[in-house]
Amino acid sequence: MKFNKRNIYISPKAKIGENVKIGDNTSIYDNVVISDNTIITNDCVIGEPLQDYYFNNNYNNPETIIGANSLIRSHTIIYCGCKFGENFSTGHRVTIREYSIFGNHCRVGTISDIQGYVTFGNHCWLHSNVHIGQKSTIGNFVFIYPYVVFTNDPTPPSEICIGPTIGDYSQIAVFSVILPGVKIGKHCLVGAGSIVGKDVDDYQLVLGNPAKPLKNVKDIIDRKTGKSHYPWPYNFDRGMPWQGMNYEEWLRKQE
Amino acid sequence: MKFNKRNIYISPKAKIGENVKIGDNTSIYDNVVISDNTIITNDCVIGEPLQDYYFNNNYNNPETIIGANSLIRSHTIIYCGCKFGENFSTGHRVTIREYSIFGNHCRVGTISDIQGYVTFGNHCWLHSNVHIGQKSTIGNFVFIYPYVVFTNDPTPPSEICIGPTIGDYSQIAVFSVILPGVKIGKHCLVGAGSIVGKDVDDYQLVLGNPAKPLKNVKDIIDRKTGKSHYPWPYNFDRGMPWQGMNYEEWLRKQE
Amino acid sequence: MKFNKRNIYISPKAKIGENVKIGDNTSIYDNVVISDNTIITNDCVIGEPLQDYYFNNNYNNPETIIGANSLIRSHTIIYCGCKFGENFSTGHRVTIREYSIFGNHCRVGTISDIQGYVTFGNHCWLHSNVHIGQKSTIGNFVFIYPYVVFTNDPTPPSEICIGPTIGDYSQIAVFSVILPGVKIGKHCLVGAGSIVGKDVDDYQLVLGNPAKPLKNVKDIIDRKTGKSHYPWPYNFDRGMPWQGMNYEEWLRKQE
Repeated sequence: MKFNKRNIYISPKAKIGENVKIGDNTSIYDNVVISDNTIITNDCVIGEPLQDYYFNNNYNNPETIIGANSLIRSHTIIYCGCKFGENFSTGHRVTIREYSIFGNHCRVGTISDIQGYVTFGNHCWLHSNVHIGQKSTIGNFVFIYPYVVFTNDPTPPSEICIGPTIGDYSQIAVFSVILPGVKIGKHCLVGAGSIVGKDVDDYQLVLGNPAKPLKNVKDIIDRKTGKSHYPWPYNFDRGMPWQGMNYEEWLRKQE
Repeated sequence: MKFNKRNIYISPKAKIGENVKIGDNTSIYDNVVISDNTIITNDCVIGEPLQDYYFNNNYNNPETIIGANSLIRSHTIIYCGCKFGENFSTGHRVTIREYSIFGNHCRVGTISDIQGYVTFGNHCWLHSNVHIGQKSTIGNFVFIYPYVVFTNDPTPPSEICIGPTIGDYSQIAVFSVILPGVKIGKHCLVGAGSIVGKDVDDYQLVLGNPAKPLKNVKDIIDRKTGKSHYPWPYNFDRGMPWQGMNYEEWLRKQE
Repeated sequence: MKFNKRNIYISPKAKIGENVKIGDNTSIYDNVVISDNTIITNDCVIGEPLQDYYFNNNYNNPETIIGANSLIRSHTIIYCGCKFGENFSTGHRVTIREYSIFGNHCRVGTISDIQGYVTFGNHCWLHSNVHIGQKSTIGNFVFIYPYVVFTNDPTPPSEICIGPTIGDYSQIAVFSVILPGVKIGKHCLVGAGSIVGKDVDDYQLVLGNPAKPLKNVKDIIDRKTGKSHYPWPYNFDRGMPWQGMNYEEWLRKQE
């Protein structure tokens, strides 16, 4: 259905690995590297050029690398200069601007908009309609839910650009804003609808507008079970490297 | 302008009704049924396959049914397994994932993202940029306004998935979040910018973060008219089955 | 990379100026005027018809004018009846509905959704994912940040449509909602995450849900510099007509 070699453009300057599939209506521009076993589905643009392309005849497209075993869903636009590790995947209509760096096993959901010049660790999952401003730095195992916005200009409009920093394992729930330069620690939970303007210590639940620290995530007690779901790696393993084994066991092996 | 038979893909396993128009650059995949008099405009994907398609050579695309007299605007992606009643319409760039069920006369606005496994009644109108999480259940005559998010995981990330339930005639105003499992009654109004974490009784206006019940919608008095606009079916009939007749008269005929 | 004359549709009723580039997979419909030196990139639709087109054989597409030196990025949909001044630019996947009027030097960011029947002055910058409801009126030098929503129906659903009005130089920060009919003065700053339901005087900072006036923007003192960044034209000039000269000097020249 998707791979009929219909209306495809692949630059002669692109490098396409072994066992790569490219869907109909997709364009792969100059200096894009698609690693082995990756699927680029239909209607995608990979290696989207910088604005300079339109005005400079000597423009040279920076290198873009899509890691092995990735799955790029339809209508995704990935700018030049980006680098993605293995097993990267996107939903539909994702826009990822220049010089975005993602580790391995990351996912970016439908309509999400990554503004470029950002760094993600491994195993980050971004749900639909997430907006990550420039100069954001995100650790490993960070989950970001729909309609979350990361900002970077404290006095708009200005030339200041200081993105948020998010520690490993933290969860940013739907409809939250992380304000410029805010540092969120490890294993934090930002509750739905929060506007976070101050730094957050490790293991804190914060909530509200403005967001305030409420309690340690270990003290979020589930009424049914009488236990806390957090730190979540003890209770969730789908797609995680500790899937099918104990999280603590996996942690010890990392040392 | 839109129907030049340019770069169209229609699967031999699709069934196309009488008097159907299909726009340029559109793909209709396996086992899609397009009912009579429906218009699928340009750059759409109908019957988008499940992830299994990419990895399983024996994949069989579940049936997708678009009802009669529908209008699908450009760049809409509809997954396999969905069923839409008659007179369905979408804005642009709508994404509707697998096994979404819509009644008759429903509308889904531009960029909206329906996550799949949801049920809508008849005459539901979703405005632009609405996000409906999996396992949501929506009644009849429900209007959902821009940047509304329905969620389903109370302790993210987890394997729990309990969507909200919305009663007939309820209105969810812009920029509101309905939290997992919340039940909203009939004829309710959720005010702009609300985070709704508790069930809402019939005819209630709720507002705020966290949302609190303020009054019966019948007591929302318009300063100019001195009357309440609610229950709204008495004061709005465009596109509704009681258009041109009295709402109470129509109600009596339904009994 | 983008200009291979592949799968392009240009209506014989469109007028294409001098030195215009049109990207692959783009459609230019009836009665569109593309002014000189403008670049329409790939996968765009310019002159999208009104709904009447689908049902009326005598439909005539209203005129659409894109000003000179504009840059329309990929997957943008611009409806018929719109008029844009010079140096207009869009991000990706922008949707601009019918009869939207923009002055010169305006920018509309990725995924933004302009609902039509709106008026913008000159030098307005809309960031990603902005939603502007019908009947909104925006002055000059107005910046609107991601996930801002302008609404227009005070008692949804109804036939009332009264959009907000925004004065020159005002800034609407991320994740804010401007409620129907609200008038915001000149040089205002609406802080992140605000729901603005009351009119705002010139030079006011407003914040919160519901938004309340906090102080004059001149009294927002930066801790580092001990000075206020506002009114911002004294401290930001990139892309502005006073770039490289003093703002007051430029102001005097306008008189």
